Amino acid sequence: MDSIKETIAAMAKAARQASQAMTRITSGQKDQALLRMADEIVRNADIVRAENQRDVQAARSAGLAPALIDRLTITESTIAAMARGLRDVAQLPDPVGSLGPSRVRPNGLEIARMRIALGVIGIIYESRPNVTVDAAGLCLKAGNAVILRGGSEAIHSNLALGAELRAAAREVGIPEAAISIVPTVDRAAIDVLLGLSESIDLVIPRGGPGLIRKVRATSTIPVIAHDAGVCHVFIDESADSEMAVAIVHESKLRQMAVCNGLETLLCHRGAAERVLPMVLKDLQEAGVEIRGCAATRAIFGDALLASEADWAEEFLAPILAVRIVDSMDQAIDHIRRYGSNHTEVILTNDYANSQEWLRRVNSSTVGVNCSTGFADGFQLGLGAEIGISTTKLHAYGPMGLEGLTTRKFVLMGDGQLRG
Amino acid sequence: MDSIKETIAAMAKAARQASQAMTRITSGQKDQALLRMADEIVRNADIVRAENQRDVQAARSAGLAPALIDRLTITESTIAAMARGLRDVAQLPDPVGSLGPSRVRPNGLEIARMRIALGVIGIIYESRPNVTVDAAGLCLKAGNAVILRGGSEAIHSNLALGAELRAAAREVGIPEAAISIVPTVDRAAIDVLLGLSESIDLVIPRGGPGLIRKVRATSTIPVIAHDAGVCHVFIDESADSEMAVAIVHESKLRQMAVCNGLETLLCHRGAAERVLPMVLKDLQEAGVEIRGCAATRAIFGDALLASEADWAEEFLAPILAVRIVDSMDQAIDHIRRYGSNHTEVILTNDYANSQEWLRRVNSSTVGVNCSTGFADGFQLGLGAEIGISTTKLHAYGPMGLEGLTTRKFVLMGDGQLRG
Repeated sequence: MDSIKETIAAMAKAARQASQAMTRITSGQKDQALLRMADEIVRNADIVRAENQRDVQAARSAGLAPALIDRLTITESTIAAMARGLRDVAQLPDPVGSLGPSRVRPNGLEIARMRIALGVIGIIYESRPNVTVDAAGLCLKAGNAVILRGGSEAIHSNLALGAELRAAAREVGIPEAAISIVPTVDRAAIDVLLGLSESIDLVIPRGGPGLIRKVRATSTIPVIAHDAGVCHVFIDESADSEMAVAIVHESKLRQMAVCNGLETLLCHRGAAERVLPMVLKDLQEAGVEIRGCAATRAIFGDALLASEADWAEEFLAPILAVRIVDSMDQAIDHIRRYGSNHTEVILTNDYANSQEWLRRVNSSTVGVNCSTGFADGFQLGLGAEIGISTTKLHAYGPMGLEGLTTRKFVLMGDGQLRG
Repeated sequence: MDSIKETIAAMAKAARQASQAMTRITSGQKDQALLRMADEIVRNADIVRAENQRDVQAARSAGLAPALIDRLTITESTIAAMARGLRDVAQLPDPVGSLGPSRVRPNGLEIARMRIALGVIGIIYESRPNVTVDAAGLCLKAGNAVILRGGSEAIHSNLALGAELRAAAREVGIPEAAISIVPTVDRAAIDVLLGLSESIDLVIPRGGPGLIRKVRATSTIPVIAHDAGVCHVFIDESADSEMAVAIVHESKLRQMAVCNGLETLLCHRGAAERVLPMVLKDLQEAGVEIRGCAATRAIFGDALLASEADWAEEFLAPILAVRIVDSMDQAIDHIRRYGSNHTEVILTNDYANSQEWLRRVNSSTVGVNCSTGFADGFQLGLGAEIGISTTKLHAYGPMGLEGLTTRKFVLMGDGQLRG
């Protein structure tokens, strides 16, 4: 434990120093580093994949589920995707250093806000090794140093990827310590990390509820959680039935293991008989299990009876909870009670209801007449995303480069006193 | 403990419900409530001051320092100032509900970000009862419910003020629970509060380092600390000497017990003999004790020798630490090592140095050729401030109404699918 403590504390201290050195690195250098990182990963793909095979074999021996082994495996196309991601980030405008609109006070003092890096960011994530590359690239572009702590089953892959990233950074004059991989799978490392509020400015946990809860409970560093998505579609009384079929279909089925997928469908009683049978039949034919309230079952006999727990469940699977409600108010109450502040869409042709939905539902993404799948950094035009925050502070919803920065006040005077 | 736990949990749950009800309260209602609050406090000033006298007498019996008793005492002019503050906040534009610039995606989906209330805010503060009124007013205007936990020595004052505020809110249809005063001085209440991350979205501690540390260590709720200000002025080689005298004088002496006051003066070696004697002599004549490095003492013999601890000290008193440095780099290193991310001003006539200072010093307010006193919400044009944040996330520096809100993504479609 003592040696882990020392290792992590030294890593965080070096990261802090690197983040300070980053204030002198130009945009050009950062972009060069990103392009070089892409090149290095491609050039040394064999080394990375050999290390990845160690993780994959250990996972097989440990009897991990095939789906998890799939997520863990780095293929040629994973390598290509990681490199493409880095090159894409290099193309994005640099968020750091720009001044917002300034105002000149009556005394002549000019005041503006300048976007700056947050400093040092710790990211704790599970499984997929491509997160190592994506997160490092975004943090670097935003001028931060980053400490990455991936899943223990990906340790060799992450260290191998980290070595390539660090080498590329060093080659363009960026301190290696700007990208650090926690070198141990010992969970004690996380506890140590979460106590280093002097050296680390932000912790982002990405993973299951257990991880998020643990990080929230332990951390003395500010936390932005990338948490569960219990997303809702509400079919309002005036909803178009064909649109409802198409949007619910895509929201549930486009990709099921993502946090912006539909989990609970709410339907206005006044639309239930007209719209719900078509919507649910379509899903059933696509292999989705329907778990409905009693009223839903009265309309759609094949539905199983939903349990209380189903309303709060992020299924990430071909299962949908369905509830018929008496009013939009009741739908909003349901979402407040069981939702996770992620994404909620109303299907309606009623102007007043669309406005009320957009104003009163305070989840991080709220929509009218569109798929839940648009809750995504690329789709929303952020360029890239580090994840989707359900923490209201700082970055709520899809979190891009801007979320990895902050703003300071800048005052330009010529001798002003308050007097 | 059990009954405290229940009381606080019930209070937080009611606050959460009130914050949800707030999504239906209009700007007009909020402003009406603020004006009524001002009226109530003035109308019932006698009741408030009688309760305040209970606190003042208890404080006298407990032997509190006269300065603290002064801060605790509610006078006629305190009442007037509180009422004026509420009326000023009513005049500010409502931050909630406005949409930022929207973009239309190629598929016709319109995307914008809407400013919304954070939800429920907990504020833990020491001493001055006017904070109860100021904070409640700002939180209400930003559409939040607030739970206030003031110092134990002000409990009767805070409860009396809270009763007036709640009554005024109720009269215009805002739930009373939107403004709650923790009714007990038992410190266990704070521990309970800091664990209620389901009901509370943000905790703001305002007070000494002990309070801030405790809140950071305990809270599972996001924290924005209003922390110490160890502020610096750096006299660069090219600084104007008269400007230096005036700015250092005001930065140190305008008000000494505030976090934007000057605590450590740094001076470029090349300016030391030309500028420092005038600057320090002026301060000495104003009664400031100078604690300098060895080089400072060589130039200004009356200076005491500064200790290592002096560099990190927020004196809030007529004491100034002074250090001569070899370069701007050394000044920046000093600030990174000992500073508190509050306010740092360079006095210079060198363009390149002014730019480098503004870019590389990442404290929450950085300035050129102006007093440190401008690090203030009113001075920076925020309209009012809830405090000055030294937490980089969400609101860094003076924190006004905007810092008490967040933004969600709003999607307006007509059937869009990601496809």
